[in-house]
Amino acid sequence: MPSAIPSAAYRGDDVLATLLAEAGTGRSPADVRALLAGVLAAPEGEDPAAWLVLVGEALPPALTEQLQALKSLLAAEAPAEEPAPAQRLADLRAALKRRDLDGFIVPRGDEHQGEYVPPRAQRLGWLTGFTGSAGHAVITADHAAVFVDGRYTLQVRAEVPADLYEYRHLIEDPLTDWIAAALPDGGRFGFDPWLHTIGWVEKTRAALERAGILLIACEDNPLDSVWRGQPPAPLAPVVPQDEDFAGESSADKRARLADELGQKGIAAAVLTQPDSVAWLLNIRGADVPCTPLPLSFAILSADASVELFLDPRKLAPRTHAQLGNQVRVRPVEEFGPALDAVARGSARVLADPGCTSAWIVDRLLLAGARVERDGDPCALPKAAKNAAELAGTRAAHLRDGAAIVRFLSWFSQEAPKGTLTELAVVERLLACRRENERFRGVSFDTIAGAGPNGAIVHYRATPETDRRLEPGSLFLLDSGAQYLDGTTDVTRTLAVGELDPALAAEMRDRFTRVLKGHIALSTARFPRGTTGSQLDVLARLPLWQAGLDYDHGTGHGVGSFLSVHEGPQRVSKVGNTVALQPGMILSDEPGYYKTGAYGIRIENLIVVRPVEPEGEPAGAERPVLEFEPLTLVPIDRSVIERALLTDAEAAWVDAYHTRVCESLSPLLDEATRRWLEAATAPL
Amino acid sequence: MPSAIPSAAYRGDDVLATLLAEAGTGRSPADVRALLAGVLAAPEGEDPAAWLVLVGEALPPALTEQLQALKSLLAAEAPAEEPAPAQRLADLRAALKRRDLDGFIVPRGDEHQGEYVPPRAQRLGWLTGFTGSAGHAVITADHAAVFVDGRYTLQVRAEVPADLYEYRHLIEDPLTDWIAAALPDGGRFGFDPWLHTIGWVEKTRAALERAGILLIACEDNPLDSVWRGQPPAPLAPVVPQDEDFAGESSADKRARLADELGQKGIAAAVLTQPDSVAWLLNIRGADVPCTPLPLSFAILSADASVELFLDPRKLAPRTHAQLGNQVRVRPVEEFGPALDAVARGSARVLADPGCTSAWIVDRLLLAGARVERDGDPCALPKAAKNAAELAGTRAAHLRDGAAIVRFLSWFSQEAPKGTLTELAVVERLLACRRENERFRGVSFDTIAGAGPNGAIVHYRATPETDRRLEPGSLFLLDSGAQYLDGTTDVTRTLAVGELDPALAAEMRDRFTRVLKGHIALSTARFPRGTTGSQLDVLARLPLWQAGLDYDHGTGHGVGSFLSVHEGPQRVSKVGNTVALQPGMILSDEPGYYKTGAYGIRIENLIVVRPVEPEGEPAGAERPVLEFEPLTLVPIDRSVIERALLTDAEAAWVDAYHTRVCESLSPLLDEATRRWLEAATAPL
Repeated sequence: MPSAIPSAAYRGDDVLATLLAEAGTGRSPADVRALLAGVLAAPEGEDPAAWLVLVGEALPPALTEQLQALKSLLAAEAPAEEPAPAQRLADLRAALKRRDLDGFIVPRGDEHQGEYVPPRAQRLGWLTGFTGSAGHAVITADHAAVFVDGRYTLQVRAEVPADLYEYRHLIEDPLTDWIAAALPDGGRFGFDPWLHTIGWVEKTRAALERAGILLIACEDNPLDSVWRGQPPAPLAPVVPQDEDFAGESSADKRARLADELGQKGIAAAVLTQPDSVAWLLNIRGADVPCTPLPLSFAILSADASVELFLDPRKLAPRTHAQLGNQVRVRPVEEFGPALDAVARGSARVLADPGCTSAWIVDRLLLAGARVERDGDPCALPKAAKNAAELAGTRAAHLRDGAAIVRFLSWFSQEAPKGTLTELAVVERLLACRRENERFRGVSFDTIAGAGPNGAIVHYRATPETDRRLEPGSLFLLDSGAQYLDGTTDVTRTLAVGELDPALAAEMRDRFTRVLKGHIALSTARFPRGTTGSQLDVLARLPLWQAGLDYDHGTGHGVGSFLSVHEGPQRVSKVGNTVALQPGMILSDEPGYYKTGAYGIRIENLIVVRPVEPEGEPAGAERPVLEFEPLTLVPIDRSVIERALLTDAEAAWVDAYHTRVCESLSPLLDEATRRWLEAATAPL
Repeated sequence: MPSAIPSAAYRGDDVLATLLAEAGTGRSPADVRALLAGVLAAPEGEDPAAWLVLVGEALPPALTEQLQALKSLLAAEAPAEEPAPAQRLADLRAALKRRDLDGFIVPRGDEHQGEYVPPRAQRLGWLTGFTGSAGHAVITADHAAVFVDGRYTLQVRAEVPADLYEYRHLIEDPLTDWIAAALPDGGRFGFDPWLHTIGWVEKTRAALERAGILLIACEDNPLDSVWRGQPPAPLAPVVPQDEDFAGESSADKRARLADELGQKGIAAAVLTQPDSVAWLLNIRGADVPCTPLPLSFAILSADASVELFLDPRKLAPRTHAQLGNQVRVRPVEEFGPALDAVARGSARVLADPGCTSAWIVDRLLLAGARVERDGDPCALPKAAKNAAELAGTRAAHLRDGAAIVRFLSWFSQEAPKGTLTELAVVERLLACRRENERFRGVSFDTIAGAGPNGAIVHYRATPETDRRLEPGSLFLLDSGAQYLDGTTDVTRTLAVGELDPALAAEMRDRFTRVLKGHIALSTARFPRGTTGSQLDVLARLPLWQAGLDYDHGTGHGVGSFLSVHEGPQRVSKVGNTVALQPGMILSDEPGYYKTGAYGIRIENLIVVRPVEPEGEPAGAERPVLEFEPLTLVPIDRSVIERALLTDAEAAWVDAYHTRVCESLSPLLDEATRRWLEAATAPL
């Protein structure tokens, strides 16, 4: 919960105008109201007063009080009345008809194709009611369908009215087949070119053309034209990321990348991923939940200059100084003309086809650019953390581990009583983390799954689903935090008191197999050039040998006070050609899920490093890489079946626990330290 | 060595004419001479009289004798005098000039892109002298270069004159860069469209066009126009493969595949891979060494009929009956017009872009076909062996194992004396296999590497390189056989007497790590949908942990009395998306190579099978697959470092050895049986 805010009454625009003028802010109450509309469209974050910097620095208390009061007033205003779902659909159909379109797709994503979408871009939710994190709706004059994947088959039925929409499977029911069946030959199917990648558009266009249907890029979004209460774009302060944490100046990063562009004869690269822009410019923001990034676009030129496209009102005053004169801040409306300018003279312009919207590529092509399709140039350097970033993440993991151990010590006392609920646990864990310095919020919504809820891989506890932790059961807890110096993500599966004797043998067998897989990946050594996909089997084999598996990836990349899901590397069954490099942070999180019964996952973050010379085996001929666990949290020894572990695996657990205990003890009070010593005793 | 042939003198064409007429063969001596030119362009094979069936069946002994005498006479004729290498190059340059070409590429492959190339297609060897299995030459008016990979950097310098050709690296020196540097803007670079896949042509054309160079498909091959002594196409008998071994009639295979084509709306599939044609039609041939396939093309129509394109003289009389009336045999000259015919009416025609020559795809497109690019439809059904094929391969492996054990028993006696050489070993092993029924030759040139030669991955002993097996050293022996009922491929690494004490510890460490990797792959269980690429790491990890690795794939597919290297599945670092299916045969062959010292490889063939219900682990939730070792040959216990094996690994070795001993003993004489019992005693 955010800290308490002084709740003075708002004294009116005239008073505010005077206070603003007296403070020399150069802002009118109307400016502030417009600003606040954007502020309220961004997540509140840990510091509800952070937005004040956008009005000015060192504001007098009287002004601060009135600004906060106005914010409270506006936040409490009832949202604009929206028509019922059937009417929204009818309005959209009328808008399509006006544009001579026979159909239209409403995706879940925004123009950055990111994981978190601001309220303004939650078009799928507004239209259909669906709140899941993946899916799309397709509308024609007579039909409408929502496409979701296996995770959401139940949820979509609960949220989306069956009399308005058919339910379809995102993977198994090809979108283009549905459209081809619903539309006549020669039909015109519309899409918003800002919301789909060029790769998607080309594939979809080819499939629809085979069915005789035209795919039409809309100049404006027909849904936006009928969504009267559509929120504005979020306005959260864009602040500098301290170079002590970033480890490299933005100027150096820009020079390095620009040099690579120049060597390839590329004039400029279009950056559409806000976390790439944040990394390149050493800035952070708060436009979406859980990930400290400012929504923005940028163009990096081969002369190392950058044009940064975002609402200039978002910039905290000291950020201008940080950006320097090689970075030109421009409003988003100027992005199109800027693309025209870089394209001039048939310039070669780099765009990543996996994340660049069709609008951008089409604009570049129309302006005469030769578009070079290649990966986002920030992706690899951002993924391979430098020494300062690694020092930061180690420090963050120390604090995070200490907070979790404080939580676990409390949990071990409380859980056997049988009174805890999932939401109570989430709250307590957050409170433990809030005590840490540099804490800036959770890095994703905590997954706290009691008993059968643990088997729902992307479960999120709500008041409706909140479940009591029954003694004897397993409890899965997957959580992470954002600190100024690093991002964490850790899963532990905990026995609630003593495991139910009737189920204990199976639970311990499964838990130990998951642990064996976790250790196998964590202890692997591998030559340079090896990809995460090559290593994935190591985490699965102990389960496979018993006819078991898990239906998610084994590991994802993690940012440095940025996104908790970051590419381009990953550990997955799905082929991935990115070689693991020193400094890359990954999760190591095999699991096992028994539907309706329990879920198990054991997750550490691990970082790639060269094998230390002293640790190098005698006779080694090739330099090999290995992983270092970053996460420092004990693994529940009571669920480990020692007989299933080899001696080497048991030794790994003991050595890891020794490290956890020695590292965290200095940060703990006496009682918690004693608890940790017991929890990390040798097997 | 082939068995002895009665060496009567040839009595002249008049006598032969009379004998041919009396036997009612309907052939003239001129026919026979033309036939023999093709027979002599094919490898001789295990039965040098096999070709006689192409003249007629049940020939009178006097005719047989004269036919064999004529063959000996023609075989002994001095080959046509060829100009010196410099002149060959000059002749080719003149031919290019006549065609207005500025350059030309001479690849190593033929029009089937296969591993073995008949003498007629050995253009690269004729022009440059290079005899390796991969590479190409590029010729311009002033420059010439030979491109080979790392295996052949020494060999190319020994074989190809440095005053005529530059040496380039096949992977690291891009071909198109070299051409772009050597040719002027607007230059015309020629290629023979029969000898390159459509995939290669499109990639190369795009790269050359960026450099302003035109890639020109030649109507005839300029090199062929100057190669006066170019041999004819090989003519080896095409014989039926017994349905007892094939396990499914050709009619059933054709109906099954045709049905799949029909369901996809495809009118016909073009088959360019001779082993696919051989599998589909249940025929075998002997046009190239080591692989019993007839060079041919085929078109499979959606009505299950086939047009088979090959020299009709190759067909043994009883093969016509086997093919039946749904298979129409046509000379290769009619392949082009047949492609035009299937393309008619904008038909959808399937072609595999990875192995179909540009000539074929261009012809189809020109005739109006819609070319569907997809995998060879025979590849997957051919790879997943049926019950009869599996029974055959098991029987073949029994016989092969017994032959190798007879060899090993002899080897264990002879090797410590220090007199054996690589070639003597190759000969003895072949003699042991020749004793087996259904033996039809080796499945590849035996790799017999003594000491440092063992570290040359694709080593082949020649009289020049033949090396003595020094006591105390390691000897790598990789060999395989073709039997009517199956194809084998096995590698064992053997101590020559007692290992040199100074090197033994390292050799045993490396050998045991290779063995651990072999066992890890062999004992893996995995869900359906898993690819060989996902499992590759299991075979490498014990080496990686010690900073070691090997630079080749871990496993290749193996045919059923067909190619010893067969796709589409494989176990490799390189990504492969083909899921392993029950019945697929693979090799499991990790290795370790110390340049200049020794090489180690341990190879079994293994077959994918579902886990037997009784073997299924309790609580298994998903059907998993596993491997069954097919190869039955002891692993040299004297090189195993027991302390490096886990108990489970040692138990695997003991169980495997028990199976080898029990399976092979009934096939062995008493002394060999005793040797085998000792060689397979528990660790």
